[in-house]
Amino acid sequence: MTSLKVALLGCGTVGSQVLRLIHEQADDLTARIGRPVEVAGIAVRRPAHHPDVPAHLLTTDAEGLVTRDDVDLVVEVIGGIEPARTLILAAFEAGKSVVTANKALLAEDGVALHAAAAKAGVDLYYEASVAGAIPLLRPLRESLAGDQIRKVVGIVNGTTNYILSRMAETGAGFAEALAEATELGYAEADPTADVDGFDAAAKAAILASLAFHTPVTASDVHREGISAVSATDVARAAEIGCTVKLLAICERVANGEGDSVAVRVHPAMIPTTHPLAAVGGAFNAVFVEAEAAGQLMFYGQGAGGEPTASAVLGDLVAVARNRLAGAAGQSTTGYANLEVRPMDETPTRYHVSLDVADKPGVLATVAHEFAAHDVSISTVRQDGSGDAATLVIVTHSAPDAALSATIAALRDMPAVRGVTSVLRVEGLS
Amino acid sequence: MTSLKVALLGCGTVGSQVLRLIHEQADDLTARIGRPVEVAGIAVRRPAHHPDVPAHLLTTDAEGLVTRDDVDLVVEVIGGIEPARTLILAAFEAGKSVVTANKALLAEDGVALHAAAAKAGVDLYYEASVAGAIPLLRPLRESLAGDQIRKVVGIVNGTTNYILSRMAETGAGFAEALAEATELGYAEADPTADVDGFDAAAKAAILASLAFHTPVTASDVHREGISAVSATDVARAAEIGCTVKLLAICERVANGEGDSVAVRVHPAMIPTTHPLAAVGGAFNAVFVEAEAAGQLMFYGQGAGGEPTASAVLGDLVAVARNRLAGAAGQSTTGYANLEVRPMDETPTRYHVSLDVADKPGVLATVAHEFAAHDVSISTVRQDGSGDAATLVIVTHSAPDAALSATIAALRDMPAVRGVTSVLRVEGLS
Repeated sequence: MTSLKVALLGCGTVGSQVLRLIHEQADDLTARIGRPVEVAGIAVRRPAHHPDVPAHLLTTDAEGLVTRDDVDLVVEVIGGIEPARTLILAAFEAGKSVVTANKALLAEDGVALHAAAAKAGVDLYYEASVAGAIPLLRPLRESLAGDQIRKVVGIVNGTTNYILSRMAETGAGFAEALAEATELGYAEADPTADVDGFDAAAKAAILASLAFHTPVTASDVHREGISAVSATDVARAAEIGCTVKLLAICERVANGEGDSVAVRVHPAMIPTTHPLAAVGGAFNAVFVEAEAAGQLMFYGQGAGGEPTASAVLGDLVAVARNRLAGAAGQSTTGYANLEVRPMDETPTRYHVSLDVADKPGVLATVAHEFAAHDVSISTVRQDGSGDAATLVIVTHSAPDAALSATIAALRDMPAVRGVTSVLRVEGLS
Repeated sequence: MTSLKVALLGCGTVGSQVLRLIHEQADDLTARIGRPVEVAGIAVRRPAHHPDVPAHLLTTDAEGLVTRDDVDLVVEVIGGIEPARTLILAAFEAGKSVVTANKALLAEDGVALHAAAAKAGVDLYYEASVAGAIPLLRPLRESLAGDQIRKVVGIVNGTTNYILSRMAETGAGFAEALAEATELGYAEADPTADVDGFDAAAKAAILASLAFHTPVTASDVHREGISAVSATDVARAAEIGCTVKLLAICERVANGEGDSVAVRVHPAMIPTTHPLAAVGGAFNAVFVEAEAAGQLMFYGQGAGGEPTASAVLGDLVAVARNRLAGAAGQSTTGYANLEVRPMDETPTRYHVSLDVADKPGVLATVAHEFAAHDVSISTVRQDGSGDAATLVIVTHSAPDAALSATIAALRDMPAVRGVTSVLRVEGLS
């Protein structure tokens, strides 16, 4: 039997595991695909850095490799925008399907990539780009294809989840927990992509695109990281039976004329009884709510060479089978093309903790400020001590702009000595 | 555009929801498939019982319907072995793909059905047969196709999970909790299929077949229900930080010459820290362990008309697209064909609670009995009161036959006044 020949672009943490699995699972892959799979070549920048890989497979000419006549399929695990984009487009033009783990590229340029794949009649599969080994994109794209997805809420970044978990466990502040994460290798030397929410925002864009059949790019995603989350925020969350998580939230919001989608990444308090609350450490989990299916949750390891390689291999089997069947697989569609709603108009709920003077009329003044912005209050708790008091307020749902304007106004009120904690709240009934 | 025409077999709880979703999601389905979907006919036993369905669609001639020339796809939601099997085989022979929710049939005759579908070059999809709306079979079959699955452990029966959850919450015995479940509609008038584990065993056979690429039928599955679980068992579980669940366990076990698979359904204690322990009420969840992907969990509603219909519709979109592409989708394979290991030889762990005489030498005698059966003890706790004592023993892993022989021997020991609780333990480190 002729082998299907795979070009591997990149041989780092993920690529080396892809290589290992293709080798170790060779017999199983052959049985599952119907033909053997063989690595035709591996494009790397510095061949000398890969002493464990057969030298004859290594090349620095990535473009030459993807367009080689004997190459059937391309696996891209370089990451980043370029040269990945150029190489993937070159692969499509040469009639080759592509499996990639590249969330940044998909989130920036998914529409153009999907169009190029469709034009060439080949596959673009990218299960590994979101939440590592957790089967998520295939279920959203295929299993729920006969349903209407309302909401996708995920913990999709392990680094920030580790940091927030440690803050909750030890009472540490952000800086201290980040330092620990860095030392243990859970955070990179430059943690910006994780800590500031860029990584989660790219994944949110991919999830929203699939869930709502609507093109969403990373720039459409409202993004806030976790560096402003304080030990006080975490303690306040615990007081109201919540825990703080960095959430990627994609939801379909009813409009006057039609639905729109809201996509955002920010830290939020969620009840400890919510299935996502128990997701600790570097694990990922994604919660899905659909009209008929109801509530679903997917849980697993969101990163790491092996889990990510598992997802890449699953896609590789699928595109290989599609190629042998002579048909491209089910792709992402953007037919619904819903409007992406700006964050200001997205309904959210806030938790606010205030230090106020403990004298008559303060609660009335504060409550009036919420009412003036048309924000309805769900619960208030007041704790007095001496002439000072703490007010802990959880609002009902209101447009985010009204909530943030309320907070700004509270900061200027003479009766308010300090706003000690502000965080959005998700999943409260 | 010509519509794809669907024959619907059965119009009960699931079928009526399938009909509703096809109608309400018509535009979305058209966009996602590339062609409209239309119900060509609905086979029911008593048309008069379906006043809400357009009369011209109803027929009692199911076989005539599935073989009609204008029918493209068949959805079978009658359940049970016959006439479902005959109708599905007739559909295949007429060149039509089938979507079914029929776990009993798949678990009994999956091999023959898959062979018939393959011979006809059509699809047999059955995501809805296990765990309702939870995308599970597609991830096992496709997402993890490049990985090696080691273990699948699931809570796949909502009725028994509801009963066990209530026993834990209220301290009630089995009979009382079953009566409550029946009253609330969580258990059927004849609860045998659920309570005795038949339903879970069928699902275990389907999961094991997919996970291990090995034909497994319901009769291969060791099956124990929950009717023997006592309030004492549940209380003893809580004492050691565990909770009692009815588990479907499919695992790959290393043999001398090669691997085999062990597939079983029985109540077991699992640690409350295990992800499955928190799955309460009528929810389902399935935990998967794979070589590269690590630990995954899938969670959601395991039954009910709407969730099951969501899974049916997802499959319907897939088989419709496959039909338009002119290629059958990825199917179940049985190439690995591993031996199914008998329960007696399957390694398990036991929790045993004994009432013994509180006098010197009893622990030694009991411990000797375990050793005589080559069963190693992990932990022992002894609580004395007067001349009586309680011994709570958790074993290490041993062949199930050795464990049950040990229990039988303990029952015969003069020093043992009673064996008050025996349950297997899963997921303890």
